[in-house]
Amino acid sequence: MKKNIFTLILALLMLAMVSGLPGLTSAAQRDSDDGKLRIIVFGAHPDDCEHRAGGVAAMWAEQGHHVKFVSVTNGDIGHAVMAGGQLAKIREKEGRQAAKALGIDETQVLDIHDGELMPTLENRKTFVRLIREWKADIVMAHRPNDYHPDHRYTGILMQDAAFMVTVSFFCPDVPQLAKNPVFLYLSDNFQKPNPFEPSVVVAIDDVFEKKVDALWSFQSQIESLWATGNFEKIVPVPKDPVGRKERRRQLSRRI
Amino acid sequence: MKKNIFTLILALLMLAMVSGLPGLTSAAQRDSDDGKLRIIVFGAHPDDCEHRAGGVAAMWAEQGHHVKFVSVTNGDIGHAVMAGGQLAKIREKEGRQAAKALGIDETQVLDIHDGELMPTLENRKTFVRLIREWKADIVMAHRPNDYHPDHRYTGILMQDAAFMVTVSFFCPDVPQLAKNPVFLYLSDNFQKPNPFEPSVVVAIDDVFEKKVDALWSFQSQIESLWATGNFEKIVPVPKDPVGRKERRRQLSRRI
Amino acid sequence: MKKNIFTLILALLMLAMVSGLPGLTSAAQRDSDDGKLRIIVFGAHPDDCEHRAGGVAAMWAEQGHHVKFVSVTNGDIGHAVMAGGQLAKIREKEGRQAAKALGIDETQVLDIHDGELMPTLENRKTFVRLIREWKADIVMAHRPNDYHPDHRYTGILMQDAAFMVTVSFFCPDVPQLAKNPVFLYLSDNFQKPNPFEPSVVVAIDDVFEKKVDALWSFQSQIESLWATGNFEKIVPVPKDPVGRKERRRQLSRRI
Amino acid sequence: MKKNIFTLILALLMLAMVSGLPGLTSAAQRDSDDGKLRIIVFGAHPDDCEHRAGGVAAMWAEQGHHVKFVSVTNGDIGHAVMAGGQLAKIREKEGRQAAKALGIDETQVLDIHDGELMPTLENRKTFVRLIREWKADIVMAHRPNDYHPDHRYTGILMQDAAFMVTVSFFCPDVPQLAKNPVFLYLSDNFQKPNPFEPSVVVAIDDVFEKKVDALWSFQSQIESLWATGNFEKIVPVPKDPVGRKERRRQLSRRI
Amino acid sequence: MKKNIFTLILALLMLAMVSGLPGLTSAAQRDSDDGKLRIIVFGAHPDDCEHRAGGVAAMWAEQGHHVKFVSVTNGDIGHAVMAGGQLAKIREKEGRQAAKALGIDETQVLDIHDGELMPTLENRKTFVRLIREWKADIVMAHRPNDYHPDHRYTGILMQDAAFMVTVSFFCPDVPQLAKNPVFLYLSDNFQKPNPFEPSVVVAIDDVFEKKVDALWSFQSQIESLWATGNFEKIVPVPKDPVGRKERRRQLSRRI
Amino acid sequence: MKKNIFTLILALLMLAMVSGLPGLTSAAQRDSDDGKLRIIVFGAHPDDCEHRAGGVAAMWAEQGHHVKFVSVTNGDIGHAVMAGGQLAKIREKEGRQAAKALGIDETQVLDIHDGELMPTLENRKTFVRLIREWKADIVMAHRPNDYHPDHRYTGILMQDAAFMVTVSFFCPDVPQLAKNPVFLYLSDNFQKPNPFEPSVVVAIDDVFEKKVDALWSFQSQIESLWATGNFEKIVPVPKDPVGRKERRRQLSRRI
Repeated sequence: MKKNIFTLILALLMLAMVSGLPGLTSAAQRDSDDGKLRIIVFGAHPDDCEHRAGGVAAMWAEQGHHVKFVSVTNGDIGHAVMAGGQLAKIREKEGRQAAKALGIDETQVLDIHDGELMPTLENRKTFVRLIREWKADIVMAHRPNDYHPDHRYTGILMQDAAFMVTVSFFCPDVPQLAKNPVFLYLSDNFQKPNPFEPSVVVAIDDVFEKKVDALWSFQSQIESLWATGNFEKIVPVPKDPVGRKERRRQLSRRI
Repeated sequence: MKKNIFTLILALLMLAMVSGLPGLTSAAQRDSDDGKLRIIVFGAHPDDCEHRAGGVAAMWAEQGHHVKFVSVTNGDIGHAVMAGGQLAKIREKEGRQAAKALGIDETQVLDIHDGELMPTLENRKTFVRLIREWKADIVMAHRPNDYHPDHRYTGILMQDAAFMVTVSFFCPDVPQLAKNPVFLYLSDNFQKPNPFEPSVVVAIDDVFEKKVDALWSFQSQIESLWATGNFEKIVPVPKDPVGRKERRRQLSRRI
Repeated sequence: MKKNIFTLILALLMLAMVSGLPGLTSAAQRDSDDGKLRIIVFGAHPDDCEHRAGGVAAMWAEQGHHVKFVSVTNGDIGHAVMAGGQLAKIREKEGRQAAKALGIDETQVLDIHDGELMPTLENRKTFVRLIREWKADIVMAHRPNDYHPDHRYTGILMQDAAFMVTVSFFCPDVPQLAKNPVFLYLSDNFQKPNPFEPSVVVAIDDVFEKKVDALWSFQSQIESLWATGNFEKIVPVPKDPVGRKERRRQLSRRI
Repeated sequence: MKKNIFTLILALLMLAMVSGLPGLTSAAQRDSDDGKLRIIVFGAHPDDCEHRAGGVAAMWAEQGHHVKFVSVTNGDIGHAVMAGGQLAKIREKEGRQAAKALGIDETQVLDIHDGELMPTLENRKTFVRLIREWKADIVMAHRPNDYHPDHRYTGILMQDAAFMVTVSFFCPDVPQLAKNPVFLYLSDNFQKPNPFEPSVVVAIDDVFEKKVDALWSFQSQIESLWATGNFEKIVPVPKDPVGRKERRRQLSRRI
Repeated sequence: MKKNIFTLILALLMLAMVSGLPGLTSAAQRDSDDGKLRIIVFGAHPDDCEHRAGGVAAMWAEQGHHVKFVSVTNGDIGHAVMAGGQLAKIREKEGRQAAKALGIDETQVLDIHDGELMPTLENRKTFVRLIREWKADIVMAHRPNDYHPDHRYTGILMQDAAFMVTVSFFCPDVPQLAKNPVFLYLSDNFQKPNPFEPSVVVAIDDVFEKKVDALWSFQSQIESLWATGNFEKIVPVPKDPVGRKERRRQLSRRI
Repeated sequence: MKKNIFTLILALLMLAMVSGLPGLTSAAQRDSDDGKLRIIVFGAHPDDCEHRAGGVAAMWAEQGHHVKFVSVTNGDIGHAVMAGGQLAKIREKEGRQAAKALGIDETQVLDIHDGELMPTLENRKTFVRLIREWKADIVMAHRPNDYHPDHRYTGILMQDAAFMVTVSFFCPDVPQLAKNPVFLYLSDNFQKPNPFEPSVVVAIDDVFEKKVDALWSFQSQIESLWATGNFEKIVPVPKDPVGRKERRRQLSRRI
C-alpha cells in the first residue's frame, strides 16, 4: 500500500442532484464523437485550477479525455513588484506551460482584474458560453465559501451558470446543452457554513510529478507569495541547478 | 385516515424570529377591515408560486383570506421554441388562468427577463412596495439555496425586503407596515448548507384537484420542459379528450 | 463570583484560520511603535458597533489599545419622523458622543444611505483602505446572516476585504499590511445556516456603565425604534431628571 | 396688445422628425375615446414640471385635455434644514396641491433620491411604462444640457424612451403605442452645445395666476432655496396676510 | 452622368484628427500581409450595418478588402409577433445571408438584448477586442445622436473604444494596434447638436442591387416594421414570384 | 512684445452662468481667511492637469493662491512595458515632483484604473467631496468632448458635481459650499459638437520653464508614449547630461 497518498477530493454541487448523473460516456459520444469525457475547470487565478485539479486533470489527459482550464481573473495584482497587464501576460504564459506539463487540451485566462471579480450577469453568461462551447460533461470550480473573494464569486458564478447551460434562449448565440453537466466543487478546508464533504476521492500519486511540474511553471508565484507568504518582497528562484532543485523540492512538499 | 397526503411544507425565515409572531388576525383587521389574512407569495417564474404554494393558497382562498402571487421574472426563455415577450405574454395569461383555478385574489408578473434576476436595490424596493401595498401578514418565497439562480435571488430579495417593509423612510412613497410580516420559505429538497426544516406542515388533499388545475393552465410548460426534461423540442399537448386526460393524469402524479 | 456577567462573544471568521493568529503585540509594535493593539469595528448603522462591541472596546481603550468604530451606513432612515442628511448629521454627532463615553480613539460614519448598502467593488475598496490606514491587528463586523440587509452586506464586505488588505497592488494608493489581521464576527442569535459559535468570550461587567453611556448617546434611537419597536411614532426622552433616569435604566436592562 | 407676454417655449426633440407629427386628435380619439389630447411631462424635481410647463398645462386642462406631471426624483435633499423621506413626503403633498391649482388630471413622484438620478435601463423602462400607460400624444422633458445632473438625465431618459414606446416586446407587460408621440423639450437658457430653439411658442397670460398658485404651493422651496439662493438657512414664509401677499408677489415676478 | 446617385456618406469621427490619417495600405500590409484594407462596422441591430454601409462594403469586397459587420444587439424585440432568442436566431441567419449577398468576409451578432445596450465598461472592452482582432484600418458606427438609444450607445462605445485599441495594457489579452484606425461615422439625417457633415462621399450605383439583396435577406423586418411602420401586426412577404418581385421593388425604392 | 506667447485658454462651463461670478476674494476670505483663491483641477491622468493647467497653476502659486491637482485615474496602463499598481506608484511619485516644480499646494491621484473611469454616482460624490474639502473658488476639468473616454467622463463628472456642491444634504458628511464655484473647461482642439471658445486667456511665458520642469517629471511618459506615439516599445531617457538636455528641449517644443 502507498505510504503517501496525494488526493483530489471533489464534492458534488447541490445542483448535481437536480440533473441526475448523466451517462457520461454516452454524453461525450454525442458531444464530440470520440467517446471521451469533456471537463472544464474554473479557477479564480492562474494556478488555482492547477493547484486544485492538476492531478486529476493529468490523469484524465493520460486517458484521452478532454480537459480545459479557465482562470477567471488574470492574476494582475498577485506579486510583490510587478502588476497589471505586464504581470497578466506573464501569468498567461506560465499557465500555458503548466497546461503542457499536465497534457491537457486547453487553458484560457479571462481578462478580469484580480481581486475584482463580481457575480454579474455578464460573467454568468461568459461561464455559460464557455461550458457550452466545451460541451462539458463535468464542470468544476471553488465552493462559494473560501478565503478569497475571487474564489467565492467563481463558485457563485458556476452555480449561477448551472442549469442555465441547458436553457436554449439564454445566450441564444451558443447552442444549449441537452443535459446539465455534473458540477463538482474543488476541495478546500473551510468549515463554515459546511465543511467540504468529498463525493469522489481519487489518488493522484501516479501523476504527482506532473502536478509539481505544472506548479513549477508559475515562477512569478514561486518568487513572490509562495516564498514569503505576503507581498512585501520577492525571493528570486535560484539560477543554479542545485538551488533550483531544492526550491522545486520545497514546492513539492507544500502540495 | 388518508393514504396519500399532499403537503405544503414551510420554513420560517430566520427573520421571523426577530419580528415575533404577530397576532395575525388583529393585524389583518387593522390592515383591511375584513378580519382576513393577507398573503403574498414570490415565485421566480410563472408556475413557481403555483407549484410550491398552490395548495395552501387554494385553502386560504376558500376561507376568504387574500392571496397574491407574484412571478418575479416573466419566464421569457423557458421553452424549446418560443421566447421573449411573445412567451412572456403567454405565460402571463396562463398565470391568470391558474389564479382563477385556485380562487386567489391576484396574480402579477414582473417584467424581468427569465435567467437575469439580480439582487439589486431596485428589485429590493419593488419587493418592499409589493409587500406593503398588499399589507401582507405573511410573505413566502424560495430559499436562497436552490438549483436555479432566479430562485436563489428571489429568496435573497425577500430576505433583503424583510424588516425594511417596516422602515418608514425606506420607499417613503408607500406607507410602511407597523409590524414585520411572518416570512416563510417555500419547501424544497436542497441539503446544503442546510436542509429545509418545516415549521408548518399542511395537508392539501382537499384542494389537490385545484392545484392540478392551476398547473394544467401552464400549457407552455407542459408541452416543453415538463414533457422532455430539457429544451430540445416540444411534445404538444394532445387535442383529443382522451389524450388530454392522460397527459393531465401524468402531470398530477408529478406534483 | 460575579452574579451578572455581561459578555462580548466573538467568532473567528473562517478567514482567520488562513492567516494564523499573528503575534499581535509584535504586529502592533511594527505598525505604531507603541506596543498597543489596533482594532477596527464595522457596524452597519450608527449604534451597531456600540451595541455589539461597546464593552470590549471600552476595556481595550482602558488598556491603551487603539479602537476605531466605523458605521458603514449613515442611519438616515431609522426614525419615525426625521430622515435624510438631517438625521445622518444627528446620528454622526451621537456616535461621537458615544466614542467619548467609551474612551475609544476614533469613530467614523460613511456616507451610504441606510438600507442601501450593496457589496460593490467600491465598498470593498473602502473597507480595505480603512483597515490598512488603521493598521489593524483585529477587524470585527457582523456575520453575513442577520436580520437586516445592511448587517449582512457589512459582513460580506469584511469577508471580501479580508486577505485583499495584504495584496500590494489592490488599492495601490494605500500600503498593504504585511500580515492579514484577525477577523472576528460580532455575536448574534441567528441560527441558519449556522448558529454563532464564540471563539472568545469576555466579561464586560467592569465597563458596563460605559456601554450604557454610549448607547444613551443615541437619543434619536431611544425616542424612536427602541421606544416603540416600529417606526410609527416617537416617545420623546423625558426632560426631567427622574424620567431620564428611569428611561436610562430601561435601556440598560435591554443590553 | 398685452404688454407682458409670458410664454411657454418648446423645442421639438430631434426624435420628433422621425415619427412625423401624428394627427393628434385622431390619436387621442383612438387612445381614450374622448377626442382629447393626452400629455405627460417629466420634470427632474417636484416643481420643475410646474415651472416649465405649468402655464401650458393649465391651458390644456381648461380645454379638457389630459395632463400628467411626473417628478422623476423625490426632491429629498433640496432644503436647508429638512431632508430624506420627511421632505419627500412634504414635496409630494405640495405637488398635489399644485396639480389642483393647475387643474391637471394627475401628478406623480418617483421614489428616486434627488441628485442621484442615473440613466439606467430600469429608469428607461419606467419612462416607457408611464408614457404608454398615459397613452401619451405629447411627451415633454428637460433637454440633456442644463445646469443640474437630474435635469440632464431626465432629458436623456426621455430620449432613450422615445421610439421604444412603440416596440411591442420592450416592456411586454404594457401594450405598446401604435404611434410615437410628439416629444418636446422644455425651454431653457443654456447655450452649449446648442441654444434652445423654440418650435412652438404659446402665450400663457390667461393662466398666469394659476401658474403662480401652483408654484406658491411649494412652500418648502419658497422658504429655502428660492428665498436665499443657497442651502445655508431658511426664511420662513410669513404667517400674516400682508407678508404672505408680498412674498407671493415676489414669487410671481421671478416666473 | 448618372441620374440617380446612391451614396455612402461618412463623417470622420473627431477622434480621427488625433490619430492622423494612417498610410492605409501600409497598415494593411503590416497587419495582414495581403495589402488589403481591413474594415469593421458596428451597427446597433441586424440590418443597420447593411443599411448604412452595405454599398461601400460591397465595393470594398469586390476589391478584395476585408470587411466585417457586427450587430451590437441581437434584434430580439423588433417584430410584431416573435421575440427573444427565437427572433435573435432568425436575425442572425438573415445577417449571414446578407453578408453573402454583399460578399464580405464576416458578420457577427453580439448577444445583447435589443433596446438594452448600455455604454458599460464590459461593452467597451468587447469593442476594443473586436477592433483589435480584426486588425482594423477603418472602424465605422452610428453617431451618438440618432433616434434610437441602441444607435446612440453604439456610437458612444465606438468613441470609447477609440484610442484605447492602441493602449497595450487595456485588454492585455489581445495585442494592441500600433496605430489608431480611422474612425468614421455612418451617415444620418439628425440635426442636433450638429448635422452630419460628410468627409467622404462614395457613389454606390454599381453595387446597388447587391445592397438590395442584402436588405431583402431581412424577411423578418420586411414583413413587420418595414411594412407597417409600427409593431402592431405583420404583412407577410408574398410567396408568389410576382408578389415577391413587387415587394422587393418597393424595398429598393426606400433605400 | 513677446514673440512666442504660451497661453492658457479656458472656457467657462455653461454652469458658470447659473452661479454668477462670485466675488472671488471675499469667497476666499470666508473659506480660508488668507484672502487667497482656492483652485482645484481635475485631469484624467497623471500629467493632464500639468499639461493643461500647469502654467496658470504656477502663476497662481507664485501669487500665493492655493492650487490642488487631482488625477482622476491612476495612469496604470499608459506605458509600453510596465502596468498596474507598479506603474500607478511611479506616476503618483512623478506627480508629486511636478507639483513641487509648479509650487502648488497639493496633488492627489484617485485609485481608479486608467481607461476605466465611469460617470457613476460614487465618482460624482467623490468630486463633490474634493471640491468642498478644498473650499474651491474655481474648478477646472476637461470638456466632455475629447479623444479619450477618461477625459470625457472627467468632464461629465465635473458637470455632474457642479451645483450639487452647494446642496447641503447631498454628501451630508462634508459641509456644502455657500456659493457655486466658477467652473472652467481646460482648453482643447476638438471641434464637435462645438469648438472650444476661450472665456479667459492668460499668457504663461513667465512660468514656462516651470511647466517644462513639471512635465519633465513624468519620465514614465517621456520614455514611452511621448517618445513613440504608441505603446509598442520604450525609448529610455538618456542618462548623460547632454542627451537629457536635448530630450528636455524636445519636450519643451511640444508643449
